[in-house]
Amino acid sequence: MAISNLDLINDCDGFPYYQADPDLYAASVCTYFELRVQDHDYAVGYMLPSVVEVFREVPSWTIDDEDRILTLAGKTTEERSAAIKTTLEALRMTGHFKVLEKWRDELYPVYGRNKELLFNVERCASPLFGVVTYGVHLSAYVRTKEGEMKIWTPRRARTKQTYGGLLDNAVAGGIASGESPWESLVRECGEEASLSEDLVRSKVKAAGTVTYFHIRTSKAGGETGLLQPECQYVYDLELPEDVIPKPGDDEVEEFYLWSVDEVREAMARGEFKPNCALVVLDFLIRHGIITNETERDYIEIVSRLHRRLEFPTL
Amino acid sequence: MAISNLDLINDCDGFPYYQADPDLYAASVCTYFELRVQDHDYAVGYMLPSVVEVFREVPSWTIDDEDRILTLAGKTTEERSAAIKTTLEALRMTGHFKVLEKWRDELYPVYGRNKELLFNVERCASPLFGVVTYGVHLSAYVRTKEGEMKIWTPRRARTKQTYGGLLDNAVAGGIASGESPWESLVRECGEEASLSEDLVRSKVKAAGTVTYFHIRTSKAGGETGLLQPECQYVYDLELPEDVIPKPGDDEVEEFYLWSVDEVREAMARGEFKPNCALVVLDFLIRHGIITNETERDYIEIVSRLHRRLEFPTL
Repeated sequence: MAISNLDLINDCDGFPYYQADPDLYAASVCTYFELRVQDHDYAVGYMLPSVVEVFREVPSWTIDDEDRILTLAGKTTEERSAAIKTTLEALRMTGHFKVLEKWRDELYPVYGRNKELLFNVERCASPLFGVVTYGVHLSAYVRTKEGEMKIWTPRRARTKQTYGGLLDNAVAGGIASGESPWESLVRECGEEASLSEDLVRSKVKAAGTVTYFHIRTSKAGGETGLLQPECQYVYDLELPEDVIPKPGDDEVEEFYLWSVDEVREAMARGEFKPNCALVVLDFLIRHGIITNETERDYIEIVSRLHRRLEFPTL
Repeated sequence: MAISNLDLINDCDGFPYYQADPDLYAASVCTYFELRVQDHDYAVGYMLPSVVEVFREVPSWTIDDEDRILTLAGKTTEERSAAIKTTLEALRMTGHFKVLEKWRDELYPVYGRNKELLFNVERCASPLFGVVTYGVHLSAYVRTKEGEMKIWTPRRARTKQTYGGLLDNAVAGGIASGESPWESLVRECGEEASLSEDLVRSKVKAAGTVTYFHIRTSKAGGETGLLQPECQYVYDLELPEDVIPKPGDDEVEEFYLWSVDEVREAMARGEFKPNCALVVLDFLIRHGIITNETERDYIEIVSRLHRRLEFPTL
């Protein structure tokens, strides 16, 4: 059974849309709690009730069961970040959440409506809070002398805990707090594909964002059903035929240089990490390879690749 | 006062978003009527109550005042299309709606959830029903020997009834019922810019869609407040420096070959037709000219350019 491009979208962007089915949306959202910060009357994430329960009676946290809101205390970025750090370190010690076993000592930023930094949170904990996270994804491709497009496609190390053995974009990584998307990309291009800084700074082109609202499955490792709204800054890099990306760390097993058809066949077999499949779809649409003449769900797919998230973004 | 890129988005994509403000959304939507067709339990458009009132007691139309639904009778595409035609011709004769004074004898398609054609409707009447309409927009550009990008930018004839004298995309037009986006584009490229069919078929690249939900203002001519959800298929064409687009009809006054800065300055002065400004924004983002480093509202703008419409699309 071939997987359609719309299936790939549904797999990654699984959170319901209000307009598509208001009743389903209301039924879904009413099961979650909003995450808020003190003195701000809007949600910055959605959380499972089973997760919120763990914060009951914990200092710095207040649960409003009637309106289903978990509020983090603290008047400044520093106070809120310190409070969340203390709580998470305690939860990590007690081994309560499986996702916390992948502690990375890397902070992700959470922004408010005025694009101000509300707090930082340990990367592996962000799905517990359902907050928006940010990343960079690079599509690297070659035009052969015959004019054919080929796409550099890495396979993730089979030993990776999350999505091991699946196909990825040429370079991809999360943006840590304090880092700009562009500097994050330059760093990751060196680490993951051994691409020189000069090449990256002179040849890579920004091409927008891909945004979606993912509901985590067992494939991601850790608790399932956690909410993960994400924004990926996407970039393109046309490489000369003689530049070969090489894994610079142990995250990538091998780089393939595949024709567009080979990439699409692998997508239809479900071999791509879910959000990387979306980045490929966006790339193929922007480059006129997937068109409305060949893709029944073209309009729907283009919109779904650019979901407007319900929480503030940077 | 310079107009920001987000202002341009808000100007064209003015219909509220549920998630941004559920109360405002509910307050807006509850003032409208849904347009439905017989035996289909979902909306294909939103209509103003003042428009719906005109359909009271008219054969083929049923108003449900309690649930605020206007239903078009007919079991087949042909029956429904004939019924709407009869009604609109009568309304045109009585001079009831100003938008019907621009009768074009051109039919627009309205689709259902299974992408089936539900009915055709005279182009100028589509905003009365608030149904999704489709168009094609081409960005034509040149790379000079020095590597600078320049964008072909036509000024609409000042005599045009709608958006006269404003700036446009190189080629733009509506897609009539029965016409494919690609064939529509090829035809419009000849009519509006005198571009040869060979050139268009070999060089134009599809690049996605731009979708938005517009609330009509007086600039559009006719009744204000009418709802206009639209899907524009967008295309890019890199032209050699020696190919000069020429107006092939009287819709365009003049073509300018402008630098990116000249285009952006004209956008900031509000000189572009609203939906054409959005197509330019999408072009500049896809080509890495507007980036998140230079545009404060980058994430919001990318999402808003690709709104998921609440009605079925092709």
